[in-house]
Amino acid sequence: MFFEGSEKKLEVVVNWSQEEGLSLRQLGDSYWARMVEACQAKILSKMSSPSCDAYLLSESSLFVWDDHFTMITCGQTTLVNAVRILFEKFSLEQIDSLIFERKNEYFPHRQTTDFYEDIGHLKKLMPGRAFRFGRAEDHHLFLFHLDKPFVPPPDDVTLEILMYDLQGESAAIFGSGQYDSKKICQLTGVDQIFAGFQIDDHVFEPCGYSLNALNQEKYYTIHVTPQEGSSYVSFETNFDVCQELPQTIGRVIEVFKPGSFDVVLFHPQRPLPFEVPGFELRSQSLQDLTCGYGVTFSHYESRRRVAEAAYEIKEWTSVRP
Amino acid sequence: MFFEGSEKKLEVVVNWSQEEGLSLRQLGDSYWARMVEACQAKILSKMSSPSCDAYLLSESSLFVWDDHFTMITCGQTTLVNAVRILFEKFSLEQIDSLIFERKNEYFPHRQTTDFYEDIGHLKKLMPGRAFRFGRAEDHHLFLFHLDKPFVPPPDDVTLEILMYDLQGESAAIFGSGQYDSKKICQLTGVDQIFAGFQIDDHVFEPCGYSLNALNQEKYYTIHVTPQEGSSYVSFETNFDVCQELPQTIGRVIEVFKPGSFDVVLFHPQRPLPFEVPGFELRSQSLQDLTCGYGVTFSHYESRRRVAEAAYEIKEWTSVRP
Repeated sequence: MFFEGSEKKLEVVVNWSQEEGLSLRQLGDSYWARMVEACQAKILSKMSSPSCDAYLLSESSLFVWDDHFTMITCGQTTLVNAVRILFEKFSLEQIDSLIFERKNEYFPHRQTTDFYEDIGHLKKLMPGRAFRFGRAEDHHLFLFHLDKPFVPPPDDVTLEILMYDLQGESAAIFGSGQYDSKKICQLTGVDQIFAGFQIDDHVFEPCGYSLNALNQEKYYTIHVTPQEGSSYVSFETNFDVCQELPQTIGRVIEVFKPGSFDVVLFHPQRPLPFEVPGFELRSQSLQDLTCGYGVTFSHYESRRRVAEAAYEIKEWTSVRP
Repeated sequence: MFFEGSEKKLEVVVNWSQEEGLSLRQLGDSYWARMVEACQAKILSKMSSPSCDAYLLSESSLFVWDDHFTMITCGQTTLVNAVRILFEKFSLEQIDSLIFERKNEYFPHRQTTDFYEDIGHLKKLMPGRAFRFGRAEDHHLFLFHLDKPFVPPPDDVTLEILMYDLQGESAAIFGSGQYDSKKICQLTGVDQIFAGFQIDDHVFEPCGYSLNALNQEKYYTIHVTPQEGSSYVSFETNFDVCQELPQTIGRVIEVFKPGSFDVVLFHPQRPLPFEVPGFELRSQSLQDLTCGYGVTFSHYESRRRVAEAAYEIKEWTSVRP
């Protein structure tokens, strides 16, 4: 009942590789395994393209390129610990960009730290700025970034779609715990969001599903927490979707049919707000960060959600005291 | 920065008074002080009517009548502890009704327990049922009740208005920390929400405001947490407002001008959804409880809130690590 789907995310760009002719990928599995374990997760599998190593984790994913990496963890992991492991090998001068994100959680009391504590730890290691996108009492995203000028490449776009309250067939498919990964892909098409990607996926017990998809330097990743009452799916990609953003979002939400979803976009140029049929744009926060990215956080809600009965917490007898 | 305005609430009806010819009010200040202190709060002042003792607390309020009491606490208090003190004096047979509520919080990680842990404690003392009104990822109210048939009197109506994101003049007045209670009442009219009530109020350092109002067996109470980024006001009354519910709500939100608010209504007959000018009914949960009350939880949002810039967490350097 109590699996926290909401994720933390760490993105780091280093210049160490250019200086030394080295690549982050050469650090080897043991380094990344140590970083992952410091966050209370573990590596389940690995898939590689010529440009990227994609690790599927017990709690989400890690992608490593020559000069940058992206780590996403859910559950009760403490992702801020990864920064400590990073600083064992890298000096602040060797880090060009560091962004730490944390989404509002379903079960925040069960977390080891909250965002305010995390930025206390980060502040000891680097200068930085912290933001909340969205209102504190509603859907929101916390973001901390290293305060250092950085110019991202023009195609350095990241799209996150965070989906809540899954409806219809996909909720039943992912929630049943009865399908293997082949059948899930066949029924839902999660392996075909973009064409030409190789797939590494995992079905969790008693339920839950993770997918990494890789095509050269581009990835997409999907993590499904189907638990009733706290259902959640995240989709993330660095595929440059800015030209067809509404279409991409439409394709993803068609699979999961969420009651509401957030869109987080890191982009060189700020896109205009757009319509999603059947959904209402409830709020939008925009900020150009001094670390070179523009960030947009938007919350969409299904037009059909107004009245509902109260949700009875049937499992309450099994809660640890 | 980190004051948690969101409240827990405990309502208890006993039959001990009828049996023994005794009144809860005769238990005396020392008993109630002990109960309040068990929750990490303290009594600041007391005002009485012929039917009710109203205590203003360091964290919200306590109202005691002959056969029932209502305790509301905010901050990092552990209100579930009050039930332990209650059971030192009363047996389960002497308790006709017990309802424990908990609102979603701004800083849930800073709480001693979460609702799931609270119901673990309550379950050891009594049979009960637990509900969540509203979606887990949005505004919601947790409610636990003793599972025992109870017939509330026909006028046993409770209205709670929980207001978020204060706008305009009242936010400035309450947030400034520069006005005394007389001036606050004069500028905002919080002492005149209903006519003919005696008032006991308190201005907190560095900011914050609490008010108890009493007229015979009727009360209303207001608690203001004006901190920027997590501003919150609760209004609650047992005044029978069902005949003019929209007017009463309109009067209260006119004072505080929230960006959004929740309405919680305990009522013998379920009221119809109603319109509030300038606001949109975003969701509504209805449940008839087996303990005799119908409960409605509604969330309203200002129509003018869509676009906003990200909120920079300027105070992050002062956060405890």
